[in-house]
Amino acid sequence: MASSRSRLFFLSSIISSLYLYMFVAGDSDSANTLSLDAIRDSLIRQEDTIVFCLIERAKFPINSVIYDQQSSSVGVPGFDGSLLHYIVKESEILNAKVGRYASPEENPFFPDGLPPQLFPPHNYPSVLHPAGASININKDIWDFYTKQLLPLFTTAGDDGNYANTAQCDLQCLQALSRRIHYGKFVAEVKFRDSPEEYSSAIHAQDGDTLMKLLTFKNVEEMVKRRVEKKAMVFGQEVTLNNVGDSGKYKIDPSVVSRLYDEWVMPLTKLVQVEYLLRRLD
Amino acid sequence: MASSRSRLFFLSSIISSLYLYMFVAGDSDSANTLSLDAIRDSLIRQEDTIVFCLIERAKFPINSVIYDQQSSSVGVPGFDGSLLHYIVKESEILNAKVGRYASPEENPFFPDGLPPQLFPPHNYPSVLHPAGASININKDIWDFYTKQLLPLFTTAGDDGNYANTAQCDLQCLQALSRRIHYGKFVAEVKFRDSPEEYSSAIHAQDGDTLMKLLTFKNVEEMVKRRVEKKAMVFGQEVTLNNVGDSGKYKIDPSVVSRLYDEWVMPLTKLVQVEYLLRRLD
Repeated sequence: MASSRSRLFFLSSIISSLYLYMFVAGDSDSANTLSLDAIRDSLIRQEDTIVFCLIERAKFPINSVIYDQQSSSVGVPGFDGSLLHYIVKESEILNAKVGRYASPEENPFFPDGLPPQLFPPHNYPSVLHPAGASININKDIWDFYTKQLLPLFTTAGDDGNYANTAQCDLQCLQALSRRIHYGKFVAEVKFRDSPEEYSSAIHAQDGDTLMKLLTFKNVEEMVKRRVEKKAMVFGQEVTLNNVGDSGKYKIDPSVVSRLYDEWVMPLTKLVQVEYLLRRLD
Repeated sequence: MASSRSRLFFLSSIISSLYLYMFVAGDSDSANTLSLDAIRDSLIRQEDTIVFCLIERAKFPINSVIYDQQSSSVGVPGFDGSLLHYIVKESEILNAKVGRYASPEENPFFPDGLPPQLFPPHNYPSVLHPAGASININKDIWDFYTKQLLPLFTTAGDDGNYANTAQCDLQCLQALSRRIHYGKFVAEVKFRDSPEEYSSAIHAQDGDTLMKLLTFKNVEEMVKRRVEKKAMVFGQEVTLNNVGDSGKYKIDPSVVSRLYDEWVMPLTKLVQVEYLLRRLD
């Protein structure tokens, strides 16, 4: 067990800190080849996207009326929900028509009743177990984003820029959803590397043991420090005269660290556990 | 004339390099108060947004089929245009419904036949001359972006991620459009500061003279260097170990400088000239 844990830790270190390049192939089918360096690049790159999105959202005050399900000032006739709900739902209808959700990396927030794609879908390589498609925790992401995260990095107030604000929210929600559901790919590559490690817990449907197997505190601390540093670098005011860090940032870097600590990493592990529990179906 | 040019240069320096805070009020109506520091902050802040958008678009290869008006693989039944055209047009229909174009800072790419807003519009302060609303050079922006700029900062290839790619294009187009049409506000504040400077050229409908009055080469050089630096800072790969500039960037910083030199600044001045020509209507 100790050596298996060491191997697991080693694998997680690769995925998260990642100085190594390698390929993991589950079988001889090239469409099933899962590239660990692609996962590595994507996870790290998605951190940048999330920080950019938060910085852009922070241009606007909280504009709370967007999230109010009973608002009289921005109510959409015939629609029962908040303005953000309306905008995300309508955007997802357009996105479904043009093939966004054909990608296994994308999960809609309001999947019910989405229209079919208007042209033949792209042939994405099928690397995930088919049961993975049913995992969608966007409701949790919506809730923590709108109720807990937003007040941490936006100012109080209302500037009337609701359409632009909601578009920034949509970008943030999509970026967070993509990052968190990327846990499906992380879990798949971990399972392929050492199926024996997970199989007994999967057969026993023991989510707690799987969660322990997937938790590496020192790796998580490193990720938190890295995203905080990214918030400092990308959120600084760049002038021709300044050299380096002025200590003034467009969003509080500690909020990004907290975002990863309290929501992104725990929910990614939740996705991983959910995925592994169905991996042998 | 020389002292007027000096004053103009001084004003432009404030607007572009901008170390001074002040307010310019055209009249006693507070709704007509045009804040120069708001313009200053917005122009500089919009540089960050544009750089973020380009970095995000560069995640995907060029995916040329999106821009092909005759594509058979991603054609939308019943729609005569490229996939990007379809996505931008449909997004603008949704945006019109939720009030984006009630803002004087926003201009749609396909304004014909947009639906009315679904709830009462926000009461934006009316700072621009009414004739400014009719100035829309998005066709020029669309053309340089899709035909000239994209090949400069994206890699060759096709990864099938058309919906995500087009969403990034939409973000870039909107950010560039907002920045370039911000010339209306720049022109208004310049006119209010010294109406006598511009009036004779306006009465003579002499666009060439207005363009000369609005051109300050050394200010433009400074803006080009600043946006290039922003591309370096925001486009670097941030790790826990690196200290500063590795020389590797997600987009070529010189492309951002060129974007401002060849398109953003000339087209902003074109908007300013168009605005001033109608300022005394």
